[in-house]
Amino acid sequence: MKLSQIGEFGLIDTLKKYAPVSKAVIKGIGDDTAVLPYSKSEYLLLTTDMLAEGTHFTRRMPPESIGHKALACNISDIAAMGGWPTFAVVSIGIPKKLSVKFIKDVYKGIERTARQFNISIVGGDTIKTDKVVINIALLGLVEKKCLVTRDGAKAGDWIFVTGPLGGSFKSDRHLNFTPRLPQARFLVEKFKPGAMMDISDGLAGDLNHILKAGRVGARLDYASIPRHKGAGLSQALNDGEDFELLFTLSPVKARSLMDWQARAKSFYFYPIGTITADVKETIKSKSFTHF
Amino acid sequence: MKLSQIGEFGLIDTLKKYAPVSKAVIKGIGDDTAVLPYSKSEYLLLTTDMLAEGTHFTRRMPPESIGHKALACNISDIAAMGGWPTFAVVSIGIPKKLSVKFIKDVYKGIERTARQFNISIVGGDTIKTDKVVINIALLGLVEKKCLVTRDGAKAGDWIFVTGPLGGSFKSDRHLNFTPRLPQARFLVEKFKPGAMMDISDGLAGDLNHILKAGRVGARLDYASIPRHKGAGLSQALNDGEDFELLFTLSPVKARSLMDWQARAKSFYFYPIGTITADVKETIKSKSFTHF
Repeated sequence: MKLSQIGEFGLIDTLKKYAPVSKAVIKGIGDDTAVLPYSKSEYLLLTTDMLAEGTHFTRRMPPESIGHKALACNISDIAAMGGWPTFAVVSIGIPKKLSVKFIKDVYKGIERTARQFNISIVGGDTIKTDKVVINIALLGLVEKKCLVTRDGAKAGDWIFVTGPLGGSFKSDRHLNFTPRLPQARFLVEKFKPGAMMDISDGLAGDLNHILKAGRVGARLDYASIPRHKGAGLSQALNDGEDFELLFTLSPVKARSLMDWQARAKSFYFYPIGTITADVKETIKSKSFTHF
Repeated sequence: MKLSQIGEFGLIDTLKKYAPVSKAVIKGIGDDTAVLPYSKSEYLLLTTDMLAEGTHFTRRMPPESIGHKALACNISDIAAMGGWPTFAVVSIGIPKKLSVKFIKDVYKGIERTARQFNISIVGGDTIKTDKVVINIALLGLVEKKCLVTRDGAKAGDWIFVTGPLGGSFKSDRHLNFTPRLPQARFLVEKFKPGAMMDISDGLAGDLNHILKAGRVGARLDYASIPRHKGAGLSQALNDGEDFELLFTLSPVKARSLMDWQARAKSFYFYPIGTITADVKETIKSKSFTHF
C-alpha cells in the first residue's frame, strides 16, 4: 500500500496505535503539543516541526524567512496550548554544495525570531542531505490552570479566529507570519477558551479536529469569516498555513470578550459561528494533506 | 564560501556565536545534550539527531534497524550526561511513493527501542520529502549530583571506554548498537566520572573534544584500546558510530573501578590512557565530518 492511499491522517492514526506512552504523559500525540509533567503549578510542552525544500520552501525564497518559519510554526503550536516557548534545538540537513551564506541566513532568521520570543537555542544537529531540511523541536511551559487543549468545545460555545484567512501560501505570509502568542496568553489569562488550536491545515479541517475531539458539531456564519484580500470563502476555509488561532468560548465569556474588544481596540477576535450538540454538523473541508 | 571549506565543526562554531541563550540555560550547544532547569534535585536534558537516507542509511537496510538507530543515538547522548531518557518526538520526511510498510517498520524499530528504555513517544511530524529523513528530539532527566559534562577531565585521570571500537559502519553495528545507558547510570551513581561523552565521530576526535573542554592533554596506550574483530588501530581511533562511552576517572576511583570489575564481571570498562597537563599532547584524528 502507498501513502497516497491511506493519507497523512491515516498514517498518523496508525502510528499513534504503536506509540508507547507512560502514565506520566498528560497529553501525547494528537494535540498541538505534548503536555508533560514539570512542577506543582506548571506543565512542560514539547512540539516539533519539519520543513523541507520543495515541500514548504524553495531556495529562491529568502533564507531568513525560511528560518523564521521553521521556528514560528512551533511557537504557534505552543501558543495554541496557552503556554510560552522556552528552549529549542535545531537540526539542519544541508546539501554539500550549498553556500555557507544561505545556511547562516537561515540561522539568522531562526535567531531573530528566537530573540523576539525569548527562546534560547540550546543544541542541534547538522548533517548532509540532498535537499535542505530543517527540524526544530521546541519546549514551552504553561500554568496548569491556563492549559487549553482541543477537546474542550461545548454546545453553545462561540467559535473565534484571531485574524483573516486564506491565500497564505500564494502570498509571502506563510513565510513571514507572526505567531499569535500575545493573543493566546491574553486569552488564557483573562477568558480561558474551552478549546484552542492553530490553523495550519485550513480552518475547515482544523475545526473538524476540535469537533471530533469534543464530540460536538458546528455551524459557521460563512459571511463573518474574515478573509485576506483576494481570498474567497473556499480559500479562507481550506488554505493552510495561516497560523491564526481558532478557539471556542462559552456564550457568557464570548460576550464579555466582545465588550472588552469594543473598548480596548488592541487585539481583535472574530466570531465566526457556534458549536452545536449535533455531531453530524461538520464542516466540509479540502484540508491540506501531504500525501 | 562552501561548507566543505569551513567544515562541520567550523559551521557549528559559527552558528553557536549567533545562538541566543538565556541565563536559565545550564549547558547549551557544545555537549552531548543541553542541560536545562527542572526541579530542585534534577536537570532536564534535551537532545536531537537527524538521520538521512543516503548519508546514514539506505532503503536496502532493515527499516526497523533504521528506526532503532534514530532513537538509540539520542539515548546514547542522554546516557553520556549521566541521565535517563523520558519523552521523544519523531519527525519523518517520507517520499510519496514509499510503501506504508517501510514507514511502519521504521516506527516499529523506534517503538521497540522506546519500550526497552521506558521512553514515551509523545508527538511528531510527518511531511513529504524526496528522500527519507528522520529527526528525533529526546528529553531526559538527571539528578544534579549525577550530571557529567565534557569539561571535567583533570591531569592524572585515567581514560576509559565501555567497549571495543572500529568498523561500525562497515558492519551492522552502527544500526543495531545498544546505547550504554546501564553502564552510564552505574558509573554516575557509583564512581562519578570527571568527563564523559559518547563516541559518535571516532575515539580520537571525540577525545579531543574532552581535552579542549578541560584544557588538558592525553597520552593513550594504543595497544590497550579494545578493537572489534577486523578493525586496526586506525579504525579504532577514527571510525565513528561506535556509540561506546568515553570517560575519565581520578586515579583513586579508577583503581576502585578496576577492583570492582575484577570481582563483579558484569560491565567491563577498558582503561586506554591518562589525561596529562600538557595541552600539546593531543590525539591525531581523522574524525568523521559531514562536509
